[in-house]
Amino acid sequence: MSPRRFALTPGEPAGIGPDLCLLLARQAQPQVLIAIASRTLLAERAAQLGLAIELLPVTPDAWPNAPAAAGRLYVWDTPLRAAAQAGRLDPANAAYVLETLNRAGQGCLAGDFAGMITAPVHKGVINEAGIPFSGHTEFLAELTGTQQVVMMLATAGLRVALVTTHLPLRAVADAITAERLERVTRILQADLVGKFGIARPRILVCGLNPHAGEGGHLGREEIEVIEPTLERLRGEGLQLVGPLPADTLFTPRHLEDCDAVLAMYHDQGLPVLKYKGFGAAVNVTLGLPIVRTSVDHGTALDLAGSGRIDTGSLQVALETAYQMTAGRPQGG
Amino acid sequence: MSPRRFALTPGEPAGIGPDLCLLLARQAQPQVLIAIASRTLLAERAAQLGLAIELLPVTPDAWPNAPAAAGRLYVWDTPLRAAAQAGRLDPANAAYVLETLNRAGQGCLAGDFAGMITAPVHKGVINEAGIPFSGHTEFLAELTGTQQVVMMLATAGLRVALVTTHLPLRAVADAITAERLERVTRILQADLVGKFGIARPRILVCGLNPHAGEGGHLGREEIEVIEPTLERLRGEGLQLVGPLPADTLFTPRHLEDCDAVLAMYHDQGLPVLKYKGFGAAVNVTLGLPIVRTSVDHGTALDLAGSGRIDTGSLQVALETAYQMTAGRPQGG
Repeated sequence: MSPRRFALTPGEPAGIGPDLCLLLARQAQPQVLIAIASRTLLAERAAQLGLAIELLPVTPDAWPNAPAAAGRLYVWDTPLRAAAQAGRLDPANAAYVLETLNRAGQGCLAGDFAGMITAPVHKGVINEAGIPFSGHTEFLAELTGTQQVVMMLATAGLRVALVTTHLPLRAVADAITAERLERVTRILQADLVGKFGIARPRILVCGLNPHAGEGGHLGREEIEVIEPTLERLRGEGLQLVGPLPADTLFTPRHLEDCDAVLAMYHDQGLPVLKYKGFGAAVNVTLGLPIVRTSVDHGTALDLAGSGRIDTGSLQVALETAYQMTAGRPQGG
Repeated sequence: MSPRRFALTPGEPAGIGPDLCLLLARQAQPQVLIAIASRTLLAERAAQLGLAIELLPVTPDAWPNAPAAAGRLYVWDTPLRAAAQAGRLDPANAAYVLETLNRAGQGCLAGDFAGMITAPVHKGVINEAGIPFSGHTEFLAELTGTQQVVMMLATAGLRVALVTTHLPLRAVADAITAERLERVTRILQADLVGKFGIARPRILVCGLNPHAGEGGHLGREEIEVIEPTLERLRGEGLQLVGPLPADTLFTPRHLEDCDAVLAMYHDQGLPVLKYKGFGAAVNVTLGLPIVRTSVDHGTALDLAGSGRIDTGSLQVALETAYQMTAGRPQGG
């Protein structure tokens, strides 16, 4: 199969996103990777880092068909609104950041790209610019008209998807409804089959309460909400194990034989994933009509321009996007 | 220093506790370890397991002064109330289980033992016998007149203490009060100094909410409760770092340089600990006037009598009890 094209968005210009993209371009990629960013920004940051990366301008009317060689990076130039400086946030560039995401997302929908890989954005500075924005995931859900998306983090040997994500802890229990659990589980199942090529995924499901409620002594959500929902879905053939206590689920005996863990909330599922996958974890948005993967870390403003950063997570984000689209020819 | 004496309670007679004690007795211990259990039970279970362990009866009027050799186990005989069978719970033996705990705890208070190490009990069957019982920890708190105890799990390279333990998730946020957080932190600090010999412990404290509340956007408990409490205690010289997001706290960069993590609730702190320490983690009760350590697993009724069990956690529980009492001569 001929190589496919992927969009890479460096995100916040004051953060480490541009640095990561440049550091990565030192090696050749197996696919056609196109950075959607300001060429000036990338050139300046490369100079700051002392990297000799040749930036090759490309446009939608003439996409390249072969991967760039080592030391070269395709760039779809997207001008900054104000000069960018490593480490210094500027709300004037919020519209620039969103334009890069828009170009990548629309390009995926149009079939120009097989998928998109995102470096971190900075929510706060976008909001400061007066633009309501709660994250890549929500932005892409809206762009693609998707009602429910699912956040999944993955590293070698472990995938963890979340039923709820960025909620205050006191709001979590009420948010675990049968309807939400069912929707999220169906999306996880569908994408493990369709995008990860797992014919019949085996999913371990955490309980909400410690010890998965211990038979109702430590909370009744397992009995009243989780178990009946899992049972209904098992009736359709899904392989769902649980609800299991989160503290014994994350042990080799259980994990060896599973394709994903479904955790009920953020701090139940992600600490183990990030502990295990430190520096090499990817954030995947499930449920979208497009493929989108992301690094699992933030903008690290204090490290931008320093060169003292690890490209491990971006590397895994790229590899995961390639894998999720393997075997599928791309339009465009 | 002459060897010290420790009490070992095998716990539920139908579970794997007796098996663990017998398997462990194949090797010599550096200290004088005294199993408080039915000698008949241990003899029968040893026969079932095909283990040739010599059971040496001891009593409080003539404690042994030297550790038992390999293949031998000191037993303070404590008769069963009904014949015990591996895997089959019997409420008739609930009083027996509590008597073993009572002997161990009283012996620690009296200075007969430098500490006690407990194998698992089965809460349900004790309750079924009509005896209110919510766990070793609460039992020993009452026995020793202790108001607040703290649960800490430890494995090589990581200790995790909990502000709240066995609460339904929906009750956690309200349970994180300034008063409780302060009490728990003080106990953790005092025992890290007094029982673990760490002169000036560095403690990492988790936030309650995802991303530690993200500046109030994902919950305000960090701002209103946790930060002011930590600040007050820092004023007294405690080295408290946080509140930190739980999913980034459990990474090598943060953990390398800390003596303990204080997590706000069960499933925030224990999954990483048990993932990292699988089969070799110990449960330590802090805040008691005595030293008590425990295995980190349950009775595993289905494995009792099978021999297919791992003594790793009990081994770590013993070593931890020895370490916690090192340098302290024992009375009695």
